[in-house]
Amino acid sequence: MAIRIGILGYGNLGKGVECAIKQNQDIELAAIFTRRNPESITPKTTGTPVINTADINNWVNKIDVMILCGGSATDLPEQTPKYAELFNVIDSFDTHAKIPEHFNNVDKSAQAGKKTAIISVGWDPGLFSLNRMYANAILPNGNDYTFWGKGVSQGHSDAIRRVKGVKDAKQYTIPVDNALKSVRNGENPDLTTRQKHTRECFVVLEQGADPEKVEQEIKTMPNYFADYDTTVHFISEEELIKNHSKIPHGGFVLRSGKTGWNNENSHIIEYSLKLDSNPEFTSSVLVAYARAAYRLNKEGSYGCKTVFDIAPAYLSSKSGAELRAHML
Amino acid sequence: MAIRIGILGYGNLGKGVECAIKQNQDIELAAIFTRRNPESITPKTTGTPVINTADINNWVNKIDVMILCGGSATDLPEQTPKYAELFNVIDSFDTHAKIPEHFNNVDKSAQAGKKTAIISVGWDPGLFSLNRMYANAILPNGNDYTFWGKGVSQGHSDAIRRVKGVKDAKQYTIPVDNALKSVRNGENPDLTTRQKHTRECFVVLEQGADPEKVEQEIKTMPNYFADYDTTVHFISEEELIKNHSKIPHGGFVLRSGKTGWNNENSHIIEYSLKLDSNPEFTSSVLVAYARAAYRLNKEGSYGCKTVFDIAPAYLSSKSGAELRAHML
Repeated sequence: MAIRIGILGYGNLGKGVECAIKQNQDIELAAIFTRRNPESITPKTTGTPVINTADINNWVNKIDVMILCGGSATDLPEQTPKYAELFNVIDSFDTHAKIPEHFNNVDKSAQAGKKTAIISVGWDPGLFSLNRMYANAILPNGNDYTFWGKGVSQGHSDAIRRVKGVKDAKQYTIPVDNALKSVRNGENPDLTTRQKHTRECFVVLEQGADPEKVEQEIKTMPNYFADYDTTVHFISEEELIKNHSKIPHGGFVLRSGKTGWNNENSHIIEYSLKLDSNPEFTSSVLVAYARAAYRLNKEGSYGCKTVFDIAPAYLSSKSGAELRAHML
Repeated sequence: MAIRIGILGYGNLGKGVECAIKQNQDIELAAIFTRRNPESITPKTTGTPVINTADINNWVNKIDVMILCGGSATDLPEQTPKYAELFNVIDSFDTHAKIPEHFNNVDKSAQAGKKTAIISVGWDPGLFSLNRMYANAILPNGNDYTFWGKGVSQGHSDAIRRVKGVKDAKQYTIPVDNALKSVRNGENPDLTTRQKHTRECFVVLEQGADPEKVEQEIKTMPNYFADYDTTVHFISEEELIKNHSKIPHGGFVLRSGKTGWNNENSHIIEYSLKLDSNPEFTSSVLVAYARAAYRLNKEGSYGCKTVFDIAPAYLSSKSGAELRAHML
């Protein structure tokens, strides 16, 4: 029998989960849950029930894993602890500084409900974290580097949209090529914020807005842009829709380390992602970890976990013997 | 108390393990075991006992994990099942086709002795396998590519040394740059053996040997060179020692996959290693997995395992809370 998934929240991430489920024979979509009017949603998977979250308790025995597709700012801190008592859950909580607190809250409910929760799943946190951790365990004497991009930063795009005179905007985070090269060469550079990434903005102005003033306000915005070399391009709304509607992203995790009796040998471990669609890729990671949560719960492994706690084989639909024969 | 490691076999790999242990505060070298005369070995770590394998049974209670540093052709198929009944063991068995058989043999003894064995640890098999597996679980619809190099192939160097008229030789395996680029561009190429790697040989001739004959014999050698574009350079023994004494290696694992309702979005996951010293890096992986074997055994998790079965956190000296706070 297939693993029955519930999707809570049908935005970009929820739609990505729906697409990812279609690629996995052992997993099926059982229902979509929403706080909106269910009739406002038409799933791509025909025949899928769309249920208001008010009625979610009726689904406790019909869902094997609930994938929570809300945002980290306000949705997940409330939803994950709440639903981890009723369902095995996966979330993509990505506020790095608040992960320990979130972990504790979710662990308490999951333990109480004998459920399995896996939080902070995706690529950063997620696959990037895994690569940082493996590389640190293998090369204890070394330096870590993470670069993001080239890709759309939703947070930075939103920040630009809040500037007076801006109608719409997209912001790309771009890793600085020379910084990447220096790390790859084992030079172990100390890099400032400005030396690691540049920011490129495509902005549609409101009628009558002053481009110079808008550009100035973007470039001097604290935290978001002031510490970076930022480029601002003013374009038409048509151009923004035509050329900047996709949500690509990616990045690089590197560890540069030394081995040998006198640290005489250098090694570079590099992991990188180049993604056409950030939400669809993140969703694909969520679905693989949903398989793991289902299996761990069957084994009686309850409580909150992260990617660090999950043996890789749990993610795969293949058996241990198949993996050893074909992937080792 | 530190985890007490035994090294069995003091070649390049065993020496690498000794160096790696030095970098890990929670791990110590308890003894080196050898089939040779123990007096012929002087460990870098002063005071380390060197013991003949005939006396290994006396060490059953003084070693937490035995790292087996022999070769895959004849040593490990015999040693790992033999010692897995007495010790928790790690090996780097790398004959891919024989892994299932080796796994079953080792599992039987480890289960009988209530020990934990982790086989085929290193980078391929090992870290490359992990990356193939994670990437396949996340992007079920896609293609895998593995490239090796640039690095020294011991097997190919040995093959050249067996050619009549050759005094010494080193062979470098080199990935073809255009093939790598095509994969990174998401072109999903079908690549022949020749299109993926080239082979570069540095050869020292015996006095009076015929270079043309030697070159011809190398380039047409079945399995090793006939299917590749091979370059042969004749150099002096001094030059070989001066410029080709290191054992660098590395490579690339890529998965190119599609997501989206109609497979409209492409993604590239890439993992790569650039290693100054193949044996020292492999040893560093072995030591991290020794930590995992020790912990799993304490938890009562017996039998044979591979990298697929080990939750990443077991490799790290940091606690779960530390990992969540600093690496997630």
